[in-house]
Amino acid sequence: MTMRDSLRHAFELATEMVDLERRAPLREHRQPEELLAELDLTLCGEGQPMPALLDSLRQLYRETPRIASSRFFNQLFGGRDPVATLAEILTVVANNPMYTYKAGGAQVLVEREVLRHMASKAGFEGGDGMFSPGGSLSNLAALVVARNEALEGAREDGLGAGRFRAYTSREGHYSLRRAMGILGLGRNNLCMVPTDEGGRMDAVALRREIETDLSAGVRPVMINATAGTTQLGAFDPLPEIAEVASEHGIWMHVDAAYGGSVLLSPRHRRLLDGCELADSLTWDAHKIMGVPLTCSTLLMRRPGLLAKHLDESAGYLFQGDDDEFNPGVRSLQCGRRNDALKLWAAWRFHGDRGYAHRIDRLFALAASAADRIEADPDLRLFRHPESLNICFQVTGCSASEICERLEREGRLLVGYARLQGENWIRLVCVNGDLDEAGLDIFFGEVKAVAAALAG
Amino acid sequence: MTMRDSLRHAFELATEMVDLERRAPLREHRQPEELLAELDLTLCGEGQPMPALLDSLRQLYRETPRIASSRFFNQLFGGRDPVATLAEILTVVANNPMYTYKAGGAQVLVEREVLRHMASKAGFEGGDGMFSPGGSLSNLAALVVARNEALEGAREDGLGAGRFRAYTSREGHYSLRRAMGILGLGRNNLCMVPTDEGGRMDAVALRREIETDLSAGVRPVMINATAGTTQLGAFDPLPEIAEVASEHGIWMHVDAAYGGSVLLSPRHRRLLDGCELADSLTWDAHKIMGVPLTCSTLLMRRPGLLAKHLDESAGYLFQGDDDEFNPGVRSLQCGRRNDALKLWAAWRFHGDRGYAHRIDRLFALAASAADRIEADPDLRLFRHPESLNICFQVTGCSASEICERLEREGRLLVGYARLQGENWIRLVCVNGDLDEAGLDIFFGEVKAVAAALAG
Repeated sequence: MTMRDSLRHAFELATEMVDLERRAPLREHRQPEELLAELDLTLCGEGQPMPALLDSLRQLYRETPRIASSRFFNQLFGGRDPVATLAEILTVVANNPMYTYKAGGAQVLVEREVLRHMASKAGFEGGDGMFSPGGSLSNLAALVVARNEALEGAREDGLGAGRFRAYTSREGHYSLRRAMGILGLGRNNLCMVPTDEGGRMDAVALRREIETDLSAGVRPVMINATAGTTQLGAFDPLPEIAEVASEHGIWMHVDAAYGGSVLLSPRHRRLLDGCELADSLTWDAHKIMGVPLTCSTLLMRRPGLLAKHLDESAGYLFQGDDDEFNPGVRSLQCGRRNDALKLWAAWRFHGDRGYAHRIDRLFALAASAADRIEADPDLRLFRHPESLNICFQVTGCSASEICERLEREGRLLVGYARLQGENWIRLVCVNGDLDEAGLDIFFGEVKAVAAALAG
Repeated sequence: MTMRDSLRHAFELATEMVDLERRAPLREHRQPEELLAELDLTLCGEGQPMPALLDSLRQLYRETPRIASSRFFNQLFGGRDPVATLAEILTVVANNPMYTYKAGGAQVLVEREVLRHMASKAGFEGGDGMFSPGGSLSNLAALVVARNEALEGAREDGLGAGRFRAYTSREGHYSLRRAMGILGLGRNNLCMVPTDEGGRMDAVALRREIETDLSAGVRPVMINATAGTTQLGAFDPLPEIAEVASEHGIWMHVDAAYGGSVLLSPRHRRLLDGCELADSLTWDAHKIMGVPLTCSTLLMRRPGLLAKHLDESAGYLFQGDDDEFNPGVRSLQCGRRNDALKLWAAWRFHGDRGYAHRIDRLFALAASAADRIEADPDLRLFRHPESLNICFQVTGCSASEICERLEREGRLLVGYARLQGENWIRLVCVNGDLDEAGLDIFFGEVKAVAAALAG
């Protein structure tokens, strides 16, 4: 098969997939065991002719969740940006590794411009940053830098004795705890600071924890503030946290994997006020900005620290060009795919203003969804949303059972949150294509299933 | 723009790119500063209309290295598999995150089958594994598990006092040293074991180092054997290393990021004999198997250890399905793109036999390239290759100057190795489309440039 044939087949199959998604936004639910029995997935000695393989791919996609459809509310992303998708397909065909200018060429400059623009939105003018394969690894890299800046010699000689601690809220993302385990700091040494009812970190409790630790000889290595929590979409009070961090000279990181994009909305940007005081910030563009997976960045207020703590001099790799243009020296990876072009293309197309408009529209939809819930005697709102997540219950009905049945009956894919000892359906308004009609369908399906469960 | 339009544009632009690559396999060399002055990459408030954006994308790709072309020898991968590219484009459009069966559906089963097949090739029947975004992170994950298995309580409470050490050869990949720094073990605690002239680890020296460490109270956490070194493509003596590891109860990892694919060739598989004795193995399919970036796996002989050391119970994420089908519990990432489908599709198309044939052909080409060098009085072979890397010099000519000039004049992109205090041009025979005619061109260009430099 030639590349021209390959591209033609890809175009045809992808068009079929998009059409199928429109016609049937949710696949029929199937158990993994059932699918395993039905699909022939075996790899073996013999190759398969192309026509049979194309049929297998078709069959596979019928059994693959339609993430970009109007019925998918299961993750903190949804929809599909046509411009970003176009650029990502070009990235696949070009296949540049992004360690060096020699191998990445103009794509390295594109990546640099995207990072520059994002850093400037975060208030980190003159800083630097990196792309990483997901918010978890961006947070991990921030913790590496924070730890090494706090503990001299850690990178070269290891951690040594002593007790270390990092701080995040109880509603912070689980990647922080995993990173503590990976980095040799210990999962138990992540302090889970209480939150208020809205899921925002209690800065007074944070200060108290740190002071207790300091007087016990424990070394704080990082405070993680969350801008956009996974369950409630809550934004920690950044200025108050920054004050605690600065008072004690502790690295402040903002996990804005989810909420970073709100920086693009002049109307809602205040949720992130104070992030410019932080030392680092994670911002995923594959969430609210709708570009294909993954597109995560770690932005640094001061330049040079990523290279200081991650660079290895590999003579066989970094040959000839200025390291400013060799992003490999600021990366967790060696071979690395180009995650920047898709975002650059979408950003060029929409402009900051297009994104601001999208974000404002999604905030308005979330508020409208909360209003609907409050106005409905059968529904119970957890609380009015700070951003795009709305947690609610149907009176007298288990949230988890509703979610399960919605999936099993092929109506919706939506998850639930665990708040104050109860399960709550978590509606996320993150799909750029969502509108009031989409909310009508959403609530219609939820209520239909709840009625059936009650009946 | 609709998705149909987007796909049509992507198809047209990608076809143009492939045609351009054939017509002009190397772009004219440009300095980054020069490109920056010429290209308008700025992101700003206003969006750009689609026709202008398409022109920008075209212009960008003219200035992007043509990685898949016949003139690219700069990395341990090359060429472009049409079937893998087709499947990867479908992956972009489908955009499934791979933490849960709920969000990945049949794609999770595809990933599972690929890992099962690879594990069985490595002699890890009944083991498990994970996809990670590159060999560096696969090696890092192996070191996490090895460290935690060696040091009880490390994951929960941190490393504590004590000195730890890991072992790799002087020709091992730099990601090991970086991982030591990241994991809190300390870069200085990576012991660089000497190699023989061919770049293979000296197992006697390894044993000596370990015994010295043990008697000094240092805790060994992992031995990394390399199967396919970056410079020479050398394979460490796995059975001898396994003996040392087993004798002292030390975790043995095989970094077969480059060489793992050789497991598919009955003729050359003996280079990896003994890998079945290891505890874990990194194998990148984006190298010799030619699938788009990135496609790296970490395979484990015993199942359950990845989940034991990486899983976090995130109630809001893993809802409902059996964890066997939730690969997120065995991952460094949370949101994670689907890197399995492209490999599955290519493997279904070629079969094990197709890959065996490709690998045997590449080995034969590498041997032929070495023969050409030996037969040529102007060229000096470092040594006959063990696999696909051939390091050589042009008598009286600096290897680095030749490589630079080859790039500047738009003839070839090839790197050099640093061996025994000298630079050597490193020819890698990894592009599945390479043939003897391609070698004619390669040596013709090298000799032309060397003659010009001498003249």
